[in-house]
Amino acid sequence: MKFDLYQNKNALIIGGGHGIGLALVKQLLEISPEYKVVATYRVSANAMELVKLHQDYPEQLRIFMIDPTSQTAVSDLSIDLSDSEKFDLIINSVGLLHSDNLSPEKSIRSFSTDLFMEVMKVNTVVTPLVAKYFEKFLRRGCASALVSISAKVGSIQDNKMGGWHSYRASKAALNMLVKNISIEFAQKRNNCIVLALHPGTTDTNLSKPFTTNTSYKVHTPEETAKNILKVINHREISDSGKFLSWDGSEIEW
Amino acid sequence: MKFDLYQNKNALIIGGGHGIGLALVKQLLEISPEYKVVATYRVSANAMELVKLHQDYPEQLRIFMIDPTSQTAVSDLSIDLSDSEKFDLIINSVGLLHSDNLSPEKSIRSFSTDLFMEVMKVNTVVTPLVAKYFEKFLRRGCASALVSISAKVGSIQDNKMGGWHSYRASKAALNMLVKNISIEFAQKRNNCIVLALHPGTTDTNLSKPFTTNTSYKVHTPEETAKNILKVINHREISDSGKFLSWDGSEIEW
Repeated sequence: MKFDLYQNKNALIIGGGHGIGLALVKQLLEISPEYKVVATYRVSANAMELVKLHQDYPEQLRIFMIDPTSQTAVSDLSIDLSDSEKFDLIINSVGLLHSDNLSPEKSIRSFSTDLFMEVMKVNTVVTPLVAKYFEKFLRRGCASALVSISAKVGSIQDNKMGGWHSYRASKAALNMLVKNISIEFAQKRNNCIVLALHPGTTDTNLSKPFTTNTSYKVHTPEETAKNILKVINHREISDSGKFLSWDGSEIEW
Repeated sequence: MKFDLYQNKNALIIGGGHGIGLALVKQLLEISPEYKVVATYRVSANAMELVKLHQDYPEQLRIFMIDPTSQTAVSDLSIDLSDSEKFDLIINSVGLLHSDNLSPEKSIRSFSTDLFMEVMKVNTVVTPLVAKYFEKFLRRGCASALVSISAKVGSIQDNKMGGWHSYRASKAALNMLVKNISIEFAQKRNNCIVLALHPGTTDTNLSKPFTTNTSYKVHTPEETAKNILKVINHREISDSGKFLSWDGSEIEW
């Protein structure tokens, strides 16, 4: 059984306010006028384009302002939605690498418990909360997908450079949660393909301070969204639990 | 360059109050009267045997009551110790799987952000805090070791059963931190061998609710401490960054 991006047309994007999440919302809406998208965002000021998009696509797009790391907020959203709601594709695009008072650690000397716990919370709890409260909305009878945007720097095996302690540890933890949820969903035979995806280096606020001197190709959010949807489309149930790169290759844990 | 358990004789055991940590303290003290051990514990009521041991070995053993997840507490301990303090072996034996109001999740339906963050904090922040504040005490000129007690259920690759979401994710995050610190210490050429160790199922409070129906061999804390010291002894600098089982075999990430 394969996931078909074009067969069923209901998607939930967590973290759709900007960056990769916003680009995913746009591309899904443009697949066809029947595509229905629910998108969440956390801060209005960072989600102006999503709000504008909602005005342009009032029939296709519903938007909700929630903090997706809050258990109550995710639970409440699941209650606000109709019991007959169905989703074929859920993508968690939420991620934190830096903020005004937070830089990724170059050395263990910069390690701070508070900052570590902040990064850990944002990058890890969203996927299990969504799995817990939105599993009931997954469409049955055909393959659905629950996709978490992870990062290659979250691969322990691939780690040659070190640094970025909090971010790396949070993505390794997220990868474990993806693997764990894939096992549980397989046991429940709910036909949901659970994936961790490395989006590639993308020109977003998250990577902005780090892309000027990189030797990696930097994608636009639009290119990355296209790559992600391409990697997800036609995935088999047997792919569930994998850590995939934007080019479709598998990444070691 | 190899780590020699019997050449230099100064150890720091974080989480020495009971279980595997306490058994490690005992065995190190018994190696020779020259062995000096600093041990930390968090709760007096759970560390009666360590306190008694301190009375029996007043010259060899110093004990400190601290919460090792508190950045301030770990920093303060490093300040309380003499600048000339040296450690050859540091073991972080702190771990949380369950408590009175916390059980490891059998299903994602039991996932709770608060409990997740509690498990995550206890199981992940101690090793980086110790690396940050105690690196200066590592003896130079010979191999030292910084060992974290991890768990095989923290291997994403080896995960076939699922469940225990918080504990598994926290140990995967800890494994990433161990790998990361090993890379940083290698760059600094401080001759410290950084390891994650799977202690094997051990008859402690941590595993008590789960050992009755297990098919695994259950070790006594004394057997486990013996196994751990055997695995650490004679390790090479090139072993730094590995995830090793109690029998010396390497575990995939």
